[in-house]
Amino acid sequence: MKHGQLATKELAEFIRERAAIEETYSKSMSKLAKMASNGSTLGTFAPMWDVFRVSADKLALCHLELMRKMNDLIRDINKYGEEQVKIHRKTKEEMVGTVEAVQALQAQNGHLQKSKEGYHAKCIELERLKKEGAPQKEVEKAEMKSKKAAESFALCIEKYNRVGGEFEQKMSESAQKFQEIEETHLRQMKQLIKGYSHSTEDTHVQVGQVHEEFKQNVENIGIDNLIQKFAEQKGTGKDRPALVGFEEYMTALAPEGGKKSRGKAFRIPGLGKRDKEPDSTSRLSNRSSRHAAFLDWTLMIKSVFHKPGGRCFGAFVRGLLSWVSSS
Amino acid sequence: MKHGQLATKELAEFIRERAAIEETYSKSMSKLAKMASNGSTLGTFAPMWDVFRVSADKLALCHLELMRKMNDLIRDINKYGEEQVKIHRKTKEEMVGTVEAVQALQAQNGHLQKSKEGYHAKCIELERLKKEGAPQKEVEKAEMKSKKAAESFALCIEKYNRVGGEFEQKMSESAQKFQEIEETHLRQMKQLIKGYSHSTEDTHVQVGQVHEEFKQNVENIGIDNLIQKFAEQKGTGKDRPALVGFEEYMTALAPEGGKKSRGKAFRIPGLGKRDKEPDSTSRLSNRSSRHAAFLDWTLMIKSVFHKPGGRCFGAFVRGLLSWVSSS
Repeated sequence: MKHGQLATKELAEFIRERAAIEETYSKSMSKLAKMASNGSTLGTFAPMWDVFRVSADKLALCHLELMRKMNDLIRDINKYGEEQVKIHRKTKEEMVGTVEAVQALQAQNGHLQKSKEGYHAKCIELERLKKEGAPQKEVEKAEMKSKKAAESFALCIEKYNRVGGEFEQKMSESAQKFQEIEETHLRQMKQLIKGYSHSTEDTHVQVGQVHEEFKQNVENIGIDNLIQKFAEQKGTGKDRPALVGFEEYMTALAPEGGKKSRGKAFRIPGLGKRDKEPDSTSRLSNRSSRHAAFLDWTLMIKSVFHKPGGRCFGAFVRGLLSWVSSS
Repeated sequence: MKHGQLATKELAEFIRERAAIEETYSKSMSKLAKMASNGSTLGTFAPMWDVFRVSADKLALCHLELMRKMNDLIRDINKYGEEQVKIHRKTKEEMVGTVEAVQALQAQNGHLQKSKEGYHAKCIELERLKKEGAPQKEVEKAEMKSKKAAESFALCIEKYNRVGGEFEQKMSESAQKFQEIEETHLRQMKQLIKGYSHSTEDTHVQVGQVHEEFKQNVENIGIDNLIQKFAEQKGTGKDRPALVGFEEYMTALAPEGGKKSRGKAFRIPGLGKRDKEPDSTSRLSNRSSRHAAFLDWTLMIKSVFHKPGGRCFGAFVRGLLSWVSSS
């Protein structure tokens, strides 16, 4: 029975260790998710990091949940352990009768032994006297003693068998009781293990869903999508600028002067100051800086390739230019 | 493109971190298995620890296998990273023409700007002279200059548009090339991620099998089994000893004396010295120690209960006795 209490304690310790392992795993996964969220936001691959981050975050949650379930289970085990101690204490009290029966049998066994030895000693004495041809009186006396010893031995046997019967009765009751306690204990332990098993299985199913989701997400983000997303984010627009034409002087510089046709506004994220309404009549506009040429030209090329199969790579033009200037 | 190399590097780092997490988890599971193998070997629950140990050991192996697969994947990623660097280097060399076209356009843009300013300056000068009523000769001279500037401006525009056409051509080729490189890169990255996904899925399936096995093993070890196993291991046998009868003195102590009926041998594991052939004719045999009585009695009780439903608790008798003597 004390082994039953030990088993309960050991099971709680085992599950506590498992909970700690799951907690560590969960924390590591959170760290991994953070690592994914720190993945480069530049380049066409960037959106994939979000898929990794979400997956690792969800895995962290799954294992944290498992840790919580294990902790709940430990509480259940400890609660059972307390009940177990109470049951054992009560049982020990009920065993007093059996203990007494055991002690009585032990004592009676000693008496029986002595009695047998006494009887046999008397028999030896009697035999010796007979062999030596001792006087009839002495032989008769020895016979009497032997007879008495035999009677005493017979009484002892009777008592021993009676005490033995009581011992048998008590012992069988106790053994039955022990068997019941042990069965209840094992049933309870198996129930707790079932809880452990269910928790790990639930988590396993959840983890499977996270894996499936990850796989789906990766499949759903097509290569075309990634390139398009990148071009949309980094691109400069889709309109092709007109060719440069002769620009007649028409007092254009006078403040209240002639009408200036204003082109469509376009912006490039992350490229210095933004002109709210850039003058894009032609490549000869006021923004005739190095950048302006880049802008117009990349714009032009984008429009050339703004057709199925060839679109969306305006960004690469910028990529090329920055790459070229880095070499 | 340099972001492509960064993405490859980051993916390898991410998976290295994941491999480390799996390694730690695997080691912890091995530790947990050891903990289970150190579970008490006494008591009816003892055989269950083996189920826990096997399960934790197998989980450790599953995650170790995942770590190995991750390490293989890192090697693949690094290999791809090296190829990527080579491809980028080669591409950079092929881009020389585009770089030249960009530079030519930049230079021509400057000329165009200057030419336009020169032409407009000449126009302003001509207008001023006309307004001030300057001599006809001066006006004609200015008109000539303005005309020349206009011609120069027109030539500049023509050249700029020609250079622009070359730029457009080169740029579109480069952009197409970049798009191809980027597509190949993303295809490769997705392939590597697929490998990652497959590995985690394989491990997930294995872990599921370990859980299922654990559940089955727990179910298969019935409570009856545990109790029977315990009784078989700790029990003293199944034969009931006869009641004690009167033992006639028949020169039993003489060495060459009367025949002694010899009972069946039985042993109790872990209970002191073992008599090879204990004299078990009756409870009054020579082994009339405290133990001998225990043995006989537990034996007797065992035989009483050696029937369906009540058998197998001989061990509890011993359990009771050791428990009683501990109190």
